[in-house]
Amino acid sequence: MLRIAVLGAGRIGKIHAANVATNPRTKLVVVADPWKEGVNALATQLGCEAAYDYASAIERADVDAVFIGTPTEFHIELMLQAVRLGKPVICEKPIDMDYERAKAAVDELERLNGRVMLAFNRRFDPDYLRLRRAIDDGEIGVVRQVIITSRDPALAARAYLETSGGIFRDMTIHDFDMARSLLGEEPVEVFAVGSRLVDPTLESIPDYDSVMVLMRTASGRQCHINCCREAVYGFDQRLEVSGSKGMLLNENHRTNSVRRYGAEATDVADPLLNFFLERHADSYKIELNSFLDAVENNSPMPATPRDGLRALRLANCASESAETGKIVRVGDH
Amino acid sequence: MLRIAVLGAGRIGKIHAANVATNPRTKLVVVADPWKEGVNALATQLGCEAAYDYASAIERADVDAVFIGTPTEFHIELMLQAVRLGKPVICEKPIDMDYERAKAAVDELERLNGRVMLAFNRRFDPDYLRLRRAIDDGEIGVVRQVIITSRDPALAARAYLETSGGIFRDMTIHDFDMARSLLGEEPVEVFAVGSRLVDPTLESIPDYDSVMVLMRTASGRQCHINCCREAVYGFDQRLEVSGSKGMLLNENHRTNSVRRYGAEATDVADPLLNFFLERHADSYKIELNSFLDAVENNSPMPATPRDGLRALRLANCASESAETGKIVRVGDH
Amino acid sequence: MLRIAVLGAGRIGKIHAANVATNPRTKLVVVADPWKEGVNALATQLGCEAAYDYASAIERADVDAVFIGTPTEFHIELMLQAVRLGKPVICEKPIDMDYERAKAAVDELERLNGRVMLAFNRRFDPDYLRLRRAIDDGEIGVVRQVIITSRDPALAARAYLETSGGIFRDMTIHDFDMARSLLGEEPVEVFAVGSRLVDPTLESIPDYDSVMVLMRTASGRQCHINCCREAVYGFDQRLEVSGSKGMLLNENHRTNSVRRYGAEATDVADPLLNFFLERHADSYKIELNSFLDAVENNSPMPATPRDGLRALRLANCASESAETGKIVRVGDH
Amino acid sequence: MLRIAVLGAGRIGKIHAANVATNPRTKLVVVADPWKEGVNALATQLGCEAAYDYASAIERADVDAVFIGTPTEFHIELMLQAVRLGKPVICEKPIDMDYERAKAAVDELERLNGRVMLAFNRRFDPDYLRLRRAIDDGEIGVVRQVIITSRDPALAARAYLETSGGIFRDMTIHDFDMARSLLGEEPVEVFAVGSRLVDPTLESIPDYDSVMVLMRTASGRQCHINCCREAVYGFDQRLEVSGSKGMLLNENHRTNSVRRYGAEATDVADPLLNFFLERHADSYKIELNSFLDAVENNSPMPATPRDGLRALRLANCASESAETGKIVRVGDH
Repeated sequence: MLRIAVLGAGRIGKIHAANVATNPRTKLVVVADPWKEGVNALATQLGCEAAYDYASAIERADVDAVFIGTPTEFHIELMLQAVRLGKPVICEKPIDMDYERAKAAVDELERLNGRVMLAFNRRFDPDYLRLRRAIDDGEIGVVRQVIITSRDPALAARAYLETSGGIFRDMTIHDFDMARSLLGEEPVEVFAVGSRLVDPTLESIPDYDSVMVLMRTASGRQCHINCCREAVYGFDQRLEVSGSKGMLLNENHRTNSVRRYGAEATDVADPLLNFFLERHADSYKIELNSFLDAVENNSPMPATPRDGLRALRLANCASESAETGKIVRVGDH
Repeated sequence: MLRIAVLGAGRIGKIHAANVATNPRTKLVVVADPWKEGVNALATQLGCEAAYDYASAIERADVDAVFIGTPTEFHIELMLQAVRLGKPVICEKPIDMDYERAKAAVDELERLNGRVMLAFNRRFDPDYLRLRRAIDDGEIGVVRQVIITSRDPALAARAYLETSGGIFRDMTIHDFDMARSLLGEEPVEVFAVGSRLVDPTLESIPDYDSVMVLMRTASGRQCHINCCREAVYGFDQRLEVSGSKGMLLNENHRTNSVRRYGAEATDVADPLLNFFLERHADSYKIELNSFLDAVENNSPMPATPRDGLRALRLANCASESAETGKIVRVGDH
Repeated sequence: MLRIAVLGAGRIGKIHAANVATNPRTKLVVVADPWKEGVNALATQLGCEAAYDYASAIERADVDAVFIGTPTEFHIELMLQAVRLGKPVICEKPIDMDYERAKAAVDELERLNGRVMLAFNRRFDPDYLRLRRAIDDGEIGVVRQVIITSRDPALAARAYLETSGGIFRDMTIHDFDMARSLLGEEPVEVFAVGSRLVDPTLESIPDYDSVMVLMRTASGRQCHINCCREAVYGFDQRLEVSGSKGMLLNENHRTNSVRRYGAEATDVADPLLNFFLERHADSYKIELNSFLDAVENNSPMPATPRDGLRALRLANCASESAETGKIVRVGDH
Repeated sequence: MLRIAVLGAGRIGKIHAANVATNPRTKLVVVADPWKEGVNALATQLGCEAAYDYASAIERADVDAVFIGTPTEFHIELMLQAVRLGKPVICEKPIDMDYERAKAAVDELERLNGRVMLAFNRRFDPDYLRLRRAIDDGEIGVVRQVIITSRDPALAARAYLETSGGIFRDMTIHDFDMARSLLGEEPVEVFAVGSRLVDPTLESIPDYDSVMVLMRTASGRQCHINCCREAVYGFDQRLEVSGSKGMLLNENHRTNSVRRYGAEATDVADPLLNFFLERHADSYKIELNSFLDAVENNSPMPATPRDGLRALRLANCASESAETGKIVRVGDH
């Protein structure tokens, strides 16, 4: 049973701590957060110890591995600390808000042969995993076209948007990671358009709220991504992959499977799950188990800091394309 | 090319005449109906001759086969006339409103070795045919349970109901035919309950508007039928068959395949097709082709007058069971 | 925060203990089971104490409420002990294998004004709850017909079947509870047929593996239930309710929402969730919260021991009907 | 009743002639084609006259309107002849294979105030019409993003591809027409990528078999189109429109609505309708009625030669973009 310290007692930290506490393969030793009230309540609830600084939790002799769910600014420092102590780490994304700093950290983590998994939750969504398995098993032959739809239920708060880094780096970045994985090849060209159809005042940030992206790989495989900051019908997350032998796509998720029939409409379903915490509740549990598998088998991590960097590079290319109106070669970045 | 006379220029006659006129395997020679205005308009529209009496149309030397779509009271007489002239016949159901008269006619038609198909349109519905093929191909193994849902969109007019013979004989009879076919064995016991949940005044007819039936075959296969005279969401026609290797079911049909997503509801479809003329438009065309196949290949008719009698017997059993509250053995009828 | 003792460390006890441990409204104080190895492992995993006898766990001063997930034979005794100590109880069904003993216990529990909830997990399934809400909100008007499909993925072991009490009392009993709730009226008549289509040797128990039931309420509402001990495509659990203004039905659940398209077949989904532990994982969590709501608000329990008795009575009626081939009046029981 | 001449007795001419013959608002007077055997057979089948030259059929005093379904090379000449005689025309697309010749013809037809409808069949597909109505009724608010998927079941014959004008002008042109209509604004920028993923030898034509397009309107509305010359699962035709208040999308069509459940897969449907003649059988009938509505009411034609030109211009822009790797402004064409 792997003994784990969870760093961070906020929204995402709580989810990870509860998953560690109830996973039969792990023991939650300690949760750490400078926010004393929050961390104490969480520790009491889950029956573990509380710590008020991250470093001491990592150093504990009875801690085998570390789960980082702190604010982004601490990610690099805490990953490096754990890696230098020889402890496996699973860390929430992004690595860092700054691309160059992130790149330097990834290089250093790789130089140290650190056992680090980046918590790309969508890679552990049961739908994505089923797509992945179907592709790997050859069910649809050679992949040709990938289409990704990604819409948030409602525009985030202005304050959030102003420091988010822009829609491509904040929101579409998840889809760039999906695209890389589903295409099975690295995109070499990126074209993007951006519009302000939800809130024209985003121009002053500046940011877009509605974007469409086209990408191509060296062998000619194609990918389209569409993103929007608002979809009144809920969190719209769809993946479609077509190949020489067939096609795969996933449906959105809802709170129930009831269908209603009336005089005006039939087969009516409730709205989609509202947002990522609900939609990806299972993903977080599978993510933890995948980390445990890699640690126990000493096998490659299913998502690495390097993957995080590559997705960020595609986001930067898309951002540049939308601004210049020109196609961007990924190799130029 | 088979040269055909269509008898009857009413609602169902028009459909059959148009199908005969546009089927490349048939030539519509004449439409016959004492209703001069109607038959003249139909003949002009479809580019064929008009006749004002049924008998003369059957007798024409340039008529190879007869399609009977007249009022029910003429069915037996016209079938017999055509059979005696050696002409194949396809006749709308029912054979007759009176069971004994119908039985005598069926016996006589069989004695004459008449080539007669009874137009059980649901047997030619693409959904039913697909179920049939899957069962015949062993896709679901040995059939165990059959569930049939059959609801009309709205209560028929009182005048119609008063002469309809009752819900079991007027409406559920189609489902009894489906049940016999899908079970692959004859039901030996029938139990039924009837209620007046749509219109309590039906008691004075007397009739029910909502019924449920259970039937069992000798080997223990089971069938449930539910019928209702009113479903505000449209014409609800579903078949379900489960067996040792799987299950089959069909979905209802709509005028379009669009789905709507909004803040309150998602995947919203339009109401179901309103009634049988819309729902079974394709069935009528396939029915005609199936008749032509049987005539050309001299093979068994896909639905016979005898099938009509057997369905009627089950309807009579159900009616008796609902009235007495007791199970009825089919062999007793 | 309600402090809870969970009695039983077996399959269902583990699920309830984990839910209590991670529910922010509850604290798991102790798990109790004479099976030392099992209860110790569970206590270590969830960070609580272990006890080797049920009674001492109930008596603890730091235990506010009791969750009974022991073998059935202890249910009555433990419920009564907790009730006499004034502690609220949630207890797994059934109350007892013996109807008379169960009836006596229910009478006694009611006499003591015990706060007891019977854990009818399907009443807390999100699909059922959505149906319930739609009916209560008048979305489908007055209920007319209810259709319940309930099929297990595979025949249980012979040893289990021999002591199960028969398909109506072991399996269909869940559906009788659903039927009572969805009809909104008590059934007054029950008719049932039973067959051995999966395993003919069940005759020697004797038991059936495939059954169909028809029930009617005093006002004429109708209900059909079909049950089968084997469905190769997975755990098939469907509810359908039609009324004067519309219809409701729920779809089955799967491990993922991916659809596959190939040359031979399209819109292909994976098999259904295998069985009740997977299908009802959410139900168990909602069940716990519903118990907490009732305790905190001192409101009626959402499912009572009396409900358990009534479902059992319908199962007994169905069993008698299948054996005698006659309709059974519920009032005669 | 409008008396109509159908020109062309080939694949599409037969469909239109049968629809004219069975539409109660029209009388099929004559079918014309130099191919004597074909036109004689068709005339006999449908009960009308046959002509061996197009011009004489147009000139007949008993012909009120003309339906042109000849080879493309005759379209302009026959449209102009009918218009000069004051007869309304419905003409199959495209106007002409040559853009400049088509443009000159459209200018001349407009100068003559000709009553000409271009037979864009997809505009009369029930799914498209339902989308159209929902948008017009404001069901999804202001349109933001349009996504069009259009895949043929199998690669056409090499000889066809060599003279087709390329995938954008031959196949995607239908989607450009849909895009214009669904966006509600004219695209101002077009970006496209093309690959040879089905058949690399198409390079020698040169042509692509798999393309993706991005377009933007002046107000920032976005559209993505993906096209592929091969989809083993059938003719894949999907439209999706998202707006400020909701989303609309349509499902593909199949020959039946049966779903199959087995041990390995559930909810299995048959392949999609194979190709456009099956998929759009209803569209052709609605198309005819829409033409009749416009003629009878002297209202604007629902699809004009000018629409055909505009779609062709977008196809030319996409073709240029795919070749140059640059975005193309539509105004430059």
